[in-house]
Amino acid sequence: MTDPNNGKGRKKRFMNRLTKEHRHATKKTGLPPGSVVYVGDKSTTEFTLEVIEYNEPEILGQTLKSIEECSPFINNGRNTWVNAVGIDHIDELKKVGNFFRLHILLLEDIANSQHRPKMEKFDDHLFVTLKMLSLSKGNEKEILQEQVSFVLSSKWLLSIQEQQGDVFDALRIRLGEPSSQVRKKEIDYLFYRLIDTIIDNYFLITEHISDTIETLEEELIVNINNDIRWKIQALRKDLIQIRKAVSPLREVIGNLTKEENAFIRKNTRRFLFDVYEHILQLNEYIDTQRDLLSSLSELYNSGISNRMNQVMKVLTVMSSIFIPLTFIAGIYGMNFENMPELKWEYGYYGVWIIIVGMATIMLFLFRKKKWL
Amino acid sequence: MTDPNNGKGRKKRFMNRLTKEHRHATKKTGLPPGSVVYVGDKSTTEFTLEVIEYNEPEILGQTLKSIEECSPFINNGRNTWVNAVGIDHIDELKKVGNFFRLHILLLEDIANSQHRPKMEKFDDHLFVTLKMLSLSKGNEKEILQEQVSFVLSSKWLLSIQEQQGDVFDALRIRLGEPSSQVRKKEIDYLFYRLIDTIIDNYFLITEHISDTIETLEEELIVNINNDIRWKIQALRKDLIQIRKAVSPLREVIGNLTKEENAFIRKNTRRFLFDVYEHILQLNEYIDTQRDLLSSLSELYNSGISNRMNQVMKVLTVMSSIFIPLTFIAGIYGMNFENMPELKWEYGYYGVWIIIVGMATIMLFLFRKKKWL
Amino acid sequence: MTDPNNGKGRKKRFMNRLTKEHRHATKKTGLPPGSVVYVGDKSTTEFTLEVIEYNEPEILGQTLKSIEECSPFINNGRNTWVNAVGIDHIDELKKVGNFFRLHILLLEDIANSQHRPKMEKFDDHLFVTLKMLSLSKGNEKEILQEQVSFVLSSKWLLSIQEQQGDVFDALRIRLGEPSSQVRKKEIDYLFYRLIDTIIDNYFLITEHISDTIETLEEELIVNINNDIRWKIQALRKDLIQIRKAVSPLREVIGNLTKEENAFIRKNTRRFLFDVYEHILQLNEYIDTQRDLLSSLSELYNSGISNRMNQVMKVLTVMSSIFIPLTFIAGIYGMNFENMPELKWEYGYYGVWIIIVGMATIMLFLFRKKKWL
Amino acid sequence: MTDPNNGKGRKKRFMNRLTKEHRHATKKTGLPPGSVVYVGDKSTTEFTLEVIEYNEPEILGQTLKSIEECSPFINNGRNTWVNAVGIDHIDELKKVGNFFRLHILLLEDIANSQHRPKMEKFDDHLFVTLKMLSLSKGNEKEILQEQVSFVLSSKWLLSIQEQQGDVFDALRIRLGEPSSQVRKKEIDYLFYRLIDTIIDNYFLITEHISDTIETLEEELIVNINNDIRWKIQALRKDLIQIRKAVSPLREVIGNLTKEENAFIRKNTRRFLFDVYEHILQLNEYIDTQRDLLSSLSELYNSGISNRMNQVMKVLTVMSSIFIPLTFIAGIYGMNFENMPELKWEYGYYGVWIIIVGMATIMLFLFRKKKWL
Amino acid sequence: MTDPNNGKGRKKRFMNRLTKEHRHATKKTGLPPGSVVYVGDKSTTEFTLEVIEYNEPEILGQTLKSIEECSPFINNGRNTWVNAVGIDHIDELKKVGNFFRLHILLLEDIANSQHRPKMEKFDDHLFVTLKMLSLSKGNEKEILQEQVSFVLSSKWLLSIQEQQGDVFDALRIRLGEPSSQVRKKEIDYLFYRLIDTIIDNYFLITEHISDTIETLEEELIVNINNDIRWKIQALRKDLIQIRKAVSPLREVIGNLTKEENAFIRKNTRRFLFDVYEHILQLNEYIDTQRDLLSSLSELYNSGISNRMNQVMKVLTVMSSIFIPLTFIAGIYGMNFENMPELKWEYGYYGVWIIIVGMATIMLFLFRKKKWL
Repeated sequence: MTDPNNGKGRKKRFMNRLTKEHRHATKKTGLPPGSVVYVGDKSTTEFTLEVIEYNEPEILGQTLKSIEECSPFINNGRNTWVNAVGIDHIDELKKVGNFFRLHILLLEDIANSQHRPKMEKFDDHLFVTLKMLSLSKGNEKEILQEQVSFVLSSKWLLSIQEQQGDVFDALRIRLGEPSSQVRKKEIDYLFYRLIDTIIDNYFLITEHISDTIETLEEELIVNINNDIRWKIQALRKDLIQIRKAVSPLREVIGNLTKEENAFIRKNTRRFLFDVYEHILQLNEYIDTQRDLLSSLSELYNSGISNRMNQVMKVLTVMSSIFIPLTFIAGIYGMNFENMPELKWEYGYYGVWIIIVGMATIMLFLFRKKKWL
Repeated sequence: MTDPNNGKGRKKRFMNRLTKEHRHATKKTGLPPGSVVYVGDKSTTEFTLEVIEYNEPEILGQTLKSIEECSPFINNGRNTWVNAVGIDHIDELKKVGNFFRLHILLLEDIANSQHRPKMEKFDDHLFVTLKMLSLSKGNEKEILQEQVSFVLSSKWLLSIQEQQGDVFDALRIRLGEPSSQVRKKEIDYLFYRLIDTIIDNYFLITEHISDTIETLEEELIVNINNDIRWKIQALRKDLIQIRKAVSPLREVIGNLTKEENAFIRKNTRRFLFDVYEHILQLNEYIDTQRDLLSSLSELYNSGISNRMNQVMKVLTVMSSIFIPLTFIAGIYGMNFENMPELKWEYGYYGVWIIIVGMATIMLFLFRKKKWL
Repeated sequence: MTDPNNGKGRKKRFMNRLTKEHRHATKKTGLPPGSVVYVGDKSTTEFTLEVIEYNEPEILGQTLKSIEECSPFINNGRNTWVNAVGIDHIDELKKVGNFFRLHILLLEDIANSQHRPKMEKFDDHLFVTLKMLSLSKGNEKEILQEQVSFVLSSKWLLSIQEQQGDVFDALRIRLGEPSSQVRKKEIDYLFYRLIDTIIDNYFLITEHISDTIETLEEELIVNINNDIRWKIQALRKDLIQIRKAVSPLREVIGNLTKEENAFIRKNTRRFLFDVYEHILQLNEYIDTQRDLLSSLSELYNSGISNRMNQVMKVLTVMSSIFIPLTFIAGIYGMNFENMPELKWEYGYYGVWIIIVGMATIMLFLFRKKKWL
Repeated sequence: MTDPNNGKGRKKRFMNRLTKEHRHATKKTGLPPGSVVYVGDKSTTEFTLEVIEYNEPEILGQTLKSIEECSPFINNGRNTWVNAVGIDHIDELKKVGNFFRLHILLLEDIANSQHRPKMEKFDDHLFVTLKMLSLSKGNEKEILQEQVSFVLSSKWLLSIQEQQGDVFDALRIRLGEPSSQVRKKEIDYLFYRLIDTIIDNYFLITEHISDTIETLEEELIVNINNDIRWKIQALRKDLIQIRKAVSPLREVIGNLTKEENAFIRKNTRRFLFDVYEHILQLNEYIDTQRDLLSSLSELYNSGISNRMNQVMKVLTVMSSIFIPLTFIAGIYGMNFENMPELKWEYGYYGVWIIIVGMATIMLFLFRKKKWL
Repeated sequence: MTDPNNGKGRKKRFMNRLTKEHRHATKKTGLPPGSVVYVGDKSTTEFTLEVIEYNEPEILGQTLKSIEECSPFINNGRNTWVNAVGIDHIDELKKVGNFFRLHILLLEDIANSQHRPKMEKFDDHLFVTLKMLSLSKGNEKEILQEQVSFVLSSKWLLSIQEQQGDVFDALRIRLGEPSSQVRKKEIDYLFYRLIDTIIDNYFLITEHISDTIETLEEELIVNINNDIRWKIQALRKDLIQIRKAVSPLREVIGNLTKEENAFIRKNTRRFLFDVYEHILQLNEYIDTQRDLLSSLSELYNSGISNRMNQVMKVLTVMSSIFIPLTFIAGIYGMNFENMPELKWEYGYYGVWIIIVGMATIMLFLFRKKKWL
């Protein structure tokens, strides 16, 4: 009825997403601390470096060949955003780390695509790492996950992405417009906008899950098939994945809004509080969806029971009507020499009357029991 | 037996209520912060502004064409309540925001009909946003939800509603009576009364849910049909919706009672504490109803099992009685040439005696097992 | 098998207890605060006032016609206990409130029979409201609930009951004995004794529930009938009701023992701590009973499954034995002209041997599977 | 299949243990506070008093007739342990209380065998009450519970047991050895050793439960019978009982280690911390066992479903093979005059070929479905 | 179908791991405190002592015959790591304890292989005990558990292992390299590296569990067999075991990072914080796996129901088609003398038309119900 291979294929994919994480986490077992090793499974073709320098009147963007070319941009009084992509290129990553004088353990965290979202304060910069979630383009939408780390200083911001492709395009366009808020304000505002953009994208995922839950519930009404429980299982795993990305953010972003530090201005902190409220709302959505999913699963199970009930009723009605009738027919199929009824002229018709009568009574009783 | 279309139609409606929220939340993805955008799906025909100015001896109400007409009412020493309706009219909303000098993020929160209930203190006013819940008028009552925001200053109160129609009519009448408490007291008392009225209406919703649970339980006793599990599911979603409206209020109202601020007088705070106790009670009701609902769902499932049991018993009793009898009839229907019993004169009657005897024993055994 | 009407009747009663509460809570929707309105459904024939004045050597009890007659008793240096009954007589209640100069919101709480147990400190008195639970006298014991409020001053104690009839009779007798502790000590000790008596009575309820659980478990062993799940459901509701009465008391009584105030002497506080320990124990009992109830419900469900299993086994054994035998009889009932076996002299006996052999093998296999 | 009486008998015993507690708790309803009443159901033949006086060089043990004889032992500078047994002998208990000048409420707690484990500090002594658990000797081991209370002063220790028989014998022997630690140290060390011994005995209980869980799991693999669910239920109740004894100890013993008081020396406190760690471990064990028990219960239920599945498969296979075959035999058992097949010479053999063919195909299909 | 013995064998092993713990814990019941007794079941052939002395330029390793030989290594200004193996050799253990002047209770904790992971500060050293987990080499991987304790002073580190064989080999090699961090830094860094290595190995276990869960889910798709529920049960126990090892570490390692003490330098504390983050991640993994496991168990159960449904459908379809047909055949097998249909020339063919027609209608109806 259902194609197991199909289900198997889908399932495997879901499972992988969660177990892959594990595989990578174990990659580092046995290595000394401070060993900057890429933990993850996405290989990028090249390591790219992009620098954007701006203040209100001017903006200058450039692709760099090596991090050393970045020197003129730093500490010239303007806001500088350095965006690096490809955390599997460990050597390049180390050079960037050296250039910005990052702690070796911090570099290790950046290269670990499985790291929990976290925030850490250093003397001359602030470190934040979190997950960028997006939906795959295809027909059967999957959740894509990428690690993004930020190092925020008072005048420059370093962002390091796992892979090519991000959700920042709209923001880049806005940076190009001289009248935009982001141009008027300091680098911490850009930092806020980047994080805000990432978290806004989480809502696309939760919306997608809401839609899938709704579709599943509709399917449940029309027909209970075996596939539904695998789809519920898949959604459960999606929710686990999102929760793992979102729930540590409560503390991370909460700390950013409360923490007294030189890198985030008081004004920006108010905006970050807005992001914090989004995180709270996301957590609420996730909880709601968990509830909906478990009630869906309950509906599925009671639907199965209901259907079994109906199958049993059909069997019982059919058997209860025809088994006694067959018995009666069997009686008069016996070959006794002395069976007076067999010789009665209307014996045969009498049997039919009995049979129809019994069937009618049975049907009436079953109808009364509401089994028909 | 059950009309799936019917169930489907009902379900869709319930689902929508929860998923719609999501759709709107994603509306803002990609927009810069401070973009005041209406998030919601209710379009109002027009934006209306109403101002009521009162002190103990006098009261004056007026409908305004634009917020500028409000100027004479503000800061003349009297209490002024400005009520705006239609948060999808963004331009008008912005004008109101400018007039009262509201923070741009605050305005954004007002326009977002999906915002969590929250309270925020500013230097010269207090901001509170919450949900106004009411029941639809029709036969199959639905929970209608509307966002209401309040901005409370020391002498004026601004309330912004999502849509036409509210639960404040009784309060407006009372404002018209010179002897009423609300006329004698300051604007913060009116603010309290508005919130109190909204929360009192929540009890109508929980009462409606209690009634529906009671009705469902009665239905469960009379007959277990497939519809019940969809009704339980619908109630579950209703409870999720109410809980999302009520549970953040614990903190919001709790803060209003504790917070030392200039906008809520000590006297009024005592009244707000009363509201706080109602919130606690609502939370208790919701928890109780969740418990009742889950025990209802359990009753439904054990009811299904019970019924299956009964169906199986009927099948087993019928089969166990008639299958052996049919076998006996089958035996004497065989055509062996040498079957002495067939020639016995009373063989046929003997078979009947055996058959009746076996059936009697069977019935006796089943009765002993309490299956009949 | 079970009488649905009977179950229905019982259920309705249980449901009512919980939903009634709701109905009353909504009674006040739309009313201004401080509207003293009776919330509840018990009408008393009259409002009664009783005053007992005592110190160690003397005691004087009197029934009052109006609260004004109480004046000579108050502030004469002796302990005075005023007991009012009938909170649906709002006018009388207001007079009492005026006499003792109670806050209007406090009076409102007294008149609300659905109020959560709470404790509130005022400048010149202490307010405590809680539930008095007792068992109905009849055969099928129900939990009766009544609101009792106490206002404790340094020299007088006002108690307000919802209805005639209370659990204080033993205490009244003791008050009559000059040598009793309660006569020797101050009014706060009487207050403690009243609360202690109320809470001691909760144990009668939890004991009754324990007994019912025990009876149900015994019934479950003897026979699983449909009634049991309704009885479990009824117990669940009873527990919800008691928990709602008991769980807020933890905080209420806890505060009474800790709170530094002039109305409860240090000595009495030690006794109240004893009451506090009873509350803890009650909470433990309720948790235990919830666990027992849910394991009972689990036992019921697995009992149903077990029984279904047994029914299915009977069906399978009967069918598996007789259906093949009937088939064999059917074979030799065929009317082919050329069926050599039919002409064999001992063919018929051979068939019997086959039939008995097959049945024996079947029985042996089923016995081996432990289905018999 | 299972003997209900047997199950019933066992169950009754388990239930009793939990409900008995309740009965006793209600014994005191209506009594004034400070009424020292024995709450429990164990009657002891006599009240015994034992005193052991010791310091490092010397030890002196004696059985007392009345507590007055104890005077010379107290306050003579040596460590004195007074052990009283039989808390149902209220008069004797009161005398002991008077002798040691114990608070009346403390005496009440001692006499209440249902009291929660607790610790209370008084000016000149420390009060601790807890449960002594042990296994009955018989074949079907039951958990025996006894209340033990300790009053610790700086030089004497009073222990009061509910019944004859305790777990202190090994410790008494050790007290007899001059070289033992307990002789060298002060009375608080003896107090610690007594408590340590009691808690060490809890491990015997949890081990017994672990063993029973293991046995049950083995039984579950071999054969799923109805008895198992009653045994699981019994274990659940055992765990509830132990948890009620252990979980309050976390706070009680924790306070003993932290509390600054004159009765427990700093050195001993370190040892008590060791006991505290045992309590933590016991709590972990109990949690683990709860998890194991609920997964056992789940295994039982899925085992039942599995077995039902197997029963159904047998029924379906038998029915699906033989019902069609019987139909075919039935066809050729019809008595139509014109049935050409009946006259074919090899018609009968042809029918057998069809029958065997159909049965083979059926068996093949069922095998493919893995139902055989 | 499934081999019970096989399942039984496997199960027994799992059970043992958890119950063995208990057995050992009870070993000490009745012993005086400070009795250093080996609690566990692993006997080692001999007690070995190994000392490694190092600073940046030099390293010196030696196997000792007795702890006294260790004297020259201690307090000579270099870092000294003493590694003892075989906690069942109590006498040797005591000598080590005396040599390093360890508290008697600390020694007792070291010898107890069932002790919870804990950390304790003493005046001149720091004590940490935790579990070393590894996978057995065989085909069916089991989790091996060993107790490891550390005593850290400012210049020396004592590690005590339960058994031969550990996970420190890579670290020993690194110690041999003069350029490695561990040689350059102080003894607390080595301590950190040892703990880090142990915790890194936990990830191997959780990865193994993830893999097994994945395999089980794939099995569930292909075929639901009875074995799966035992495998789920085994995984549940594995998770309980790991959680018991990991969850107390949160506090232990957390304290190491926060605690101000002389034995862990500020620099190392930063590294320990990294370990702390691993612990958090492990806890998250374990929670995720618990969720996955319980959803797997749910899938198993709904799979069983699904399959039962399919079995029932086959039975119902077969019975509903053939039972009525057999009845019809039975009718014309009756031997009435006057049955006109029997004499019709095409009566037999008419019956076949009826039979085929009925079967077709039945099949059509079942197909419409999607039962085929």
